[in-house]
Amino acid sequence: MKNHASLVLLCVVAAGVAFAAGPDEKKKPLTTAEVLESAQPSDWRRPTPGQTLYVELAAGRVIIELAPQLAPRHVGVIRQLAAEKYYDGLPIARVQDNYVVQWGDVDEQRKIEPPLRTLPDESVVPWHQRMGFIKLPDKDGYAPETGWIDGFPVGLNRKSPASAWITHCYGVVGVGRNDPPDSGSGTELYVVIGQAPRHLDRNIVTVGRVLRGMEILSSLPRGTGALGFYEKPEQRVPIRSIRIAADVPEAERTNLEVLRTDTPLFTKFVEARRNRREGWFTTPLGHIDVCNINIPVRDVSGPKT
Amino acid sequence: MKNHASLVLLCVVAAGVAFAAGPDEKKKPLTTAEVLESAQPSDWRRPTPGQTLYVELAAGRVIIELAPQLAPRHVGVIRQLAAEKYYDGLPIARVQDNYVVQWGDVDEQRKIEPPLRTLPDESVVPWHQRMGFIKLPDKDGYAPETGWIDGFPVGLNRKSPASAWITHCYGVVGVGRNDPPDSGSGTELYVVIGQAPRHLDRNIVTVGRVLRGMEILSSLPRGTGALGFYEKPEQRVPIRSIRIAADVPEAERTNLEVLRTDTPLFTKFVEARRNRREGWFTTPLGHIDVCNINIPVRDVSGPKT
Repeated sequence: MKNHASLVLLCVVAAGVAFAAGPDEKKKPLTTAEVLESAQPSDWRRPTPGQTLYVELAAGRVIIELAPQLAPRHVGVIRQLAAEKYYDGLPIARVQDNYVVQWGDVDEQRKIEPPLRTLPDESVVPWHQRMGFIKLPDKDGYAPETGWIDGFPVGLNRKSPASAWITHCYGVVGVGRNDPPDSGSGTELYVVIGQAPRHLDRNIVTVGRVLRGMEILSSLPRGTGALGFYEKPEQRVPIRSIRIAADVPEAERTNLEVLRTDTPLFTKFVEARRNRREGWFTTPLGHIDVCNINIPVRDVSGPKT
Repeated sequence: MKNHASLVLLCVVAAGVAFAAGPDEKKKPLTTAEVLESAQPSDWRRPTPGQTLYVELAAGRVIIELAPQLAPRHVGVIRQLAAEKYYDGLPIARVQDNYVVQWGDVDEQRKIEPPLRTLPDESVVPWHQRMGFIKLPDKDGYAPETGWIDGFPVGLNRKSPASAWITHCYGVVGVGRNDPPDSGSGTELYVVIGQAPRHLDRNIVTVGRVLRGMEILSSLPRGTGALGFYEKPEQRVPIRSIRIAADVPEAERTNLEVLRTDTPLFTKFVEARRNRREGWFTTPLGHIDVCNINIPVRDVSGPKT
C-alpha cells in the first residue's frame, strides 16, 4: 500500500515520530508530528465535565464539548434537557450526505417548558477581549477574522458592536430551527459531516463540537428522503441517552485531553499545518482554512479494570 | 421535524419550486431553486461516455467523470487500466474519516506495464485560454483564482507559465502516490469524503470527480488502522468492476446530465449560492468557496423496461 505514504494525513495524536535534531536541524521548520512530540502536559487541557455531553448510541459514545461563552442560553437549555433525560429514546432521523446528521425531537412531540421554547438568537454573540481570541493569520472569505475561542473555531468581527460565532466546521454542533431565528429550542441538534457549510455561519446557533465519535455519525447510512431524512421509522437510530459528563460516575467517563489553542506550541502547530513539511509534500501552500485545522484530542483514560 | 425547514439545504435537482413572478418580483435576486427552475435543456450537458467510469460495488454504482484536460496522461492510463479490467476484484482498503476513501492495488501485487508505472507529475497542468475558465468572483486563500474548467472545480495561476489544477473538493478523485511525485501510476485511486483537504492541491494528481454514488463511499465504516486502512482483510470492500461507460451496453448505462458551468444560467446559480435568499436565511454572506458549490447532476435515464 505504497508504504502508507500515499496521501499522508498524519495520525497526529498517535504519531510518535522521534525528533532527535542536531543544532543545525533545529532551525528547520517543524512538521506537525515534531510539534506534538515536543508538547508538554500543560499544552493539553481537560474539557470541563459540566460542559461535556455523552451521546450514547448502540455503536458507541459520541462526546460533545459545549461552548458556554459562545451560546450561553442555548448551552444552558441543552444542559438542562440532558439533565432531565429529555433526549433519551429520541432518534437520529436525518443524515444528509456532505452536510449534517440531525437528531432529537424531530416529530415535535415532546413538550418542554414554554420559556425554553423560544430562546434569543445566539447565532452571533457579543465579543469582548476578555473572551480571548487566538487569531489564524490567514484570510477568510466568510469572516473578517477567524481563529479560536476556548478551542472552538470562530469567526470574529471587531467592528462595533464586536461579535463572534462558531464557524460551521466538520464536527461542529448546532441547534436546528424553523424559519424564525429564535425558534431553535435545543430539542433538535445537528452536527456537520461534510465540507464546512459556512453559509450557515451567523444564520443559526452553534453550541459546540464533537471531540470523539465523529466516525460513528459520519458513517451512518444517508437518508433518502428530502433533506436526508430517513423515510422509514426503522431506519432511525435511537439515542440511548444524552448525559452531562459530570452526571456520569467517574469510572464510566472517558477522559479526553484537547490540545490548548492559547499556547506558543499551538502557534507552531498551526504553522506546521499552514506549510506542510513532511517528505511527501512538494509544495507547501502557506495558507490554511480555520476548518482545516483539526485540534488534536487524546484519550488519557487508564485501562478499565 | 420543524416543517423540514430546520437547516435548509435545497435538494436542488429535485426541487420543483414554481416560479411565477410578476414584473416587479423579477427584480428580486433569485434563489437556487428559482434559477434551476428556469434552466433550459441547453443548460445541461451529458458527460462523455468515453471519459466516464462506472465503479460497480455490491452497494451500487459509483460514477466518476474524468478530466482529460486536467491530467491527460493519468486519465489515459486509468482508462487503459479500466479497459483491461485491471481494477476488477481489487478492494476499497482505506476509509479515513473526514479525509479520503482509497481503493485499488494497495498491496502492490498486480503488475502493470513498466511505462505506466512512472508517469509525469500532473498535479498542475499548463493552462491556455482555449482550455476555458469560468471564474468564481470570490477570493480564495489557496489559489490566486478559483473557478471551473469543463465543470471541474479548479485553481488557476495566470503567472507565466500559467497553470491549473483541480481543487480537492468533496467528491474529487485523485491518484495515490508514494513520496516521489511521479510515483502515482493510477493503480490506486482516492476520493475526498470530508472537508476539502486543499493542502493536497498542487501536491498530488487529481483526475476527476464523483457525479453519483458519493453516499455509498462516504458512509463506509472508517478503518481503524493507521491512515484509516482497514485492519482485517474481511473489512475490505471488493470492487466488482470498473468500466468505461462507453464499454457498457447502452441499456445498462446511467444517463446523467450535469449543469453546465459555462452559461449565463450558471452565473446566476453561483450568485444564488453566494447570497442565500431562501426565507430561512437571515444573513446572506456574499461569499462562497469553490468547494461549496455543488454542481447539480440529474439522472435522465428513462424507466428501465
